[in-house]
Amino acid sequence: MPLITVIPGDGIGPEVTEQALALLDGLGLDLSFDVLDHVNAGTFLATGCALSDDDLARIRRSDGALLGAIGDARVAGTRYARDVLLRLRFELDLYANYRPAQLLHDRLSPLRDPDRRAIDCVIVRENTEGLYTDIGGALRPGSTAEVAIDTEVSTHLGVSRVIDFALASATRAVCMVDKSNAVPNGGRLWQQCWLDATAARPDLATSHLYVDVAAMRLLSDPTAFDVIVTNNSYGDILSDLAAELAGGLGTSASVNLNPQTGFGLYEPVHGSAPDIAGTDTANPIGAILSAALLLERVGHPAEAAAVRTAVRMAVAEVRCTADLGGRLGTKAAGEAIRAALH
Amino acid sequence: MPLITVIPGDGIGPEVTEQALALLDGLGLDLSFDVLDHVNAGTFLATGCALSDDDLARIRRSDGALLGAIGDARVAGTRYARDVLLRLRFELDLYANYRPAQLLHDRLSPLRDPDRRAIDCVIVRENTEGLYTDIGGALRPGSTAEVAIDTEVSTHLGVSRVIDFALASATRAVCMVDKSNAVPNGGRLWQQCWLDATAARPDLATSHLYVDVAAMRLLSDPTAFDVIVTNNSYGDILSDLAAELAGGLGTSASVNLNPQTGFGLYEPVHGSAPDIAGTDTANPIGAILSAALLLERVGHPAEAAAVRTAVRMAVAEVRCTADLGGRLGTKAAGEAIRAALH
Ligand SMILES: CC(C)[C@H](C(=O)O)[C@@H](O)C(=O)O
Ligand SMILES: CC(C)[C@H](C(=O)O)[C@@H](O)C(=O)O
Repeated sequence: MPLITVIPGDGIGPEVTEQALALLDGLGLDLSFDVLDHVNAGTFLATGCALSDDDLARIRRSDGALLGAIGDARVAGTRYARDVLLRLRFELDLYANYRPAQLLHDRLSPLRDPDRRAIDCVIVRENTEGLYTDIGGALRPGSTAEVAIDTEVSTHLGVSRVIDFALASATRAVCMVDKSNAVPNGGRLWQQCWLDATAARPDLATSHLYVDVAAMRLLSDPTAFDVIVTNNSYGDILSDLAAELAGGLGTSASVNLNPQTGFGLYEPVHGSAPDIAGTDTANPIGAILSAALLLERVGHPAEAAAVRTAVRMAVAEVRCTADLGGRLGTKAAGEAIRAALH
Repeated sequence: MPLITVIPGDGIGPEVTEQALALLDGLGLDLSFDVLDHVNAGTFLATGCALSDDDLARIRRSDGALLGAIGDARVAGTRYARDVLLRLRFELDLYANYRPAQLLHDRLSPLRDPDRRAIDCVIVRENTEGLYTDIGGALRPGSTAEVAIDTEVSTHLGVSRVIDFALASATRAVCMVDKSNAVPNGGRLWQQCWLDATAARPDLATSHLYVDVAAMRLLSDPTAFDVIVTNNSYGDILSDLAAELAGGLGTSASVNLNPQTGFGLYEPVHGSAPDIAGTDTANPIGAILSAALLLERVGHPAEAAAVRTAVRMAVAEVRCTADLGGRLGTKAAGEAIRAALH
């Protein structure tokens, strides 16, 4: 029986997680849950450590983890995000951050041209190297002569495995995004790995864009994209952009995956939104579609598809939260999706 | 008499530069020009060097430079962009890349919501450090054990001077964009310089966003921005995004500026677009509005304003190229703006 760790986290995290769990419960599947209630900013403030080695060991014993959201104004400027979210990504080697962006309903698109609205793509973001390694430091810190260094590390192992995963995920087309015209060393490596990996996939349409052009193209021609593969920081930016084009962050799901072990950390792309926490207004769809990604990977693809259909139905019938034009609260929006499921 | 270096460059560069020069000529001002026709990909291919030390010395003797576009498929994967454009930015210490994004006409916005369309902001991009320093290298290059390193360098000098410039450029609000929650060393330095510099400007509304959120917010609420200040790579991405929101790259102007010496390298944000080069279809407005930025800085602000008004008139009357909904070629579109000027 698959065991799922649950980390509700901060802000709206617990509220949206509650809806995702209610939905999973209602499916009557063979899933059990281990809830880590204390992994949050409060614990970080009280003890200096929100995710202990013991927590990490419990997570490792599970088959996947569902995360609500991490972030709190009281810990801004600290290592909090690094010590929880980035620690999980790095220590569990969750090297592929898989972020689908699919428009749930035409009315949600911010775009004027009806023919451009139906974005349906996936950003595959390298998740364990690049600018996120925390390798670097500062010379003469705090002085007016300070020099700060952050090292962008790209390895053949890291780049080729995420490209392989992206190519394996695609059915139609893959676009590799880098900045090899300005950032030469990682750029050359991405280009080389891309050339090597795509040679074996003549069935796919493959292309390349510089990141600035890719951002622009996502806006001017979003439906042209199928799978986009890119490094850690460009993936961070482009996936938020794609989420916005797909109707806003409230509906965006993701999984931080190790394709070899199959372990995934499933999380909505949105943050903890402290301004609306506790008001029953947060959109639970990002968390619910993250649970659908989980269902797919723990052997329940039919249920995953049913959840997606239920979400689309609820959104089409405007039984959803205010960010999607509805009038329901978090709980009622979750309930509407569960009702559509049965 | 101000002396302006002109670098037509590659692809559509010479065509759009021709229109910018025709317009400057028509103003009858005390400007003289030194044209460096050979700074292009052809020269790079023939000699391995497109911008010689002698060229650089000529440029240094001038009061500003007008660049068309740099880039050619035949030099993809080489150091060409570095050796021309990035060399000019670094060696002339043009540390502030100033990129206005202003919607010229409602019909050009890609956005559905009429209230969100009128973007009118400026991206101030740090232009001489960050990920663009070319500091780094590769270990075991070409092997499956390769490790590639690119160093993101941020200095107190570099960060504080570009923030100062951004604050001096703003009348209403400045938003600083970084990724200090994940990239800690440069992040801390940007935060510290920002804190120090904004303390002296209580008259401005100041705010901070992480780059992923900033990209999303540009799309969801573009009119909320006035001046955005950020590092070299985030500025690259956000300025292309802002350009697309302002009606597409064809109309976007920029200057790479050293605010102390006053020297500016003026260039449209678009590239060399080799696919349409020589077909008289390129939009000359990016180059013409770059010339307007030049006029402003060499003591002709009234003429700069007149050029901007003429551009708006031509666009409003649909006397423009196809990318803006018009039916004119490059030459005729340039002519239409000159006609509107008189
Ligand atoms: C050509 C390239 C190196 C350049 C950059 O990234 O700076 C361009 O995209 C720009 O924005 O001027
Ligand atoms: C919180 C932050 C460190 C994180 C990231 O940049 O990876 C977030 O923006 C995300 O995309 O999951």
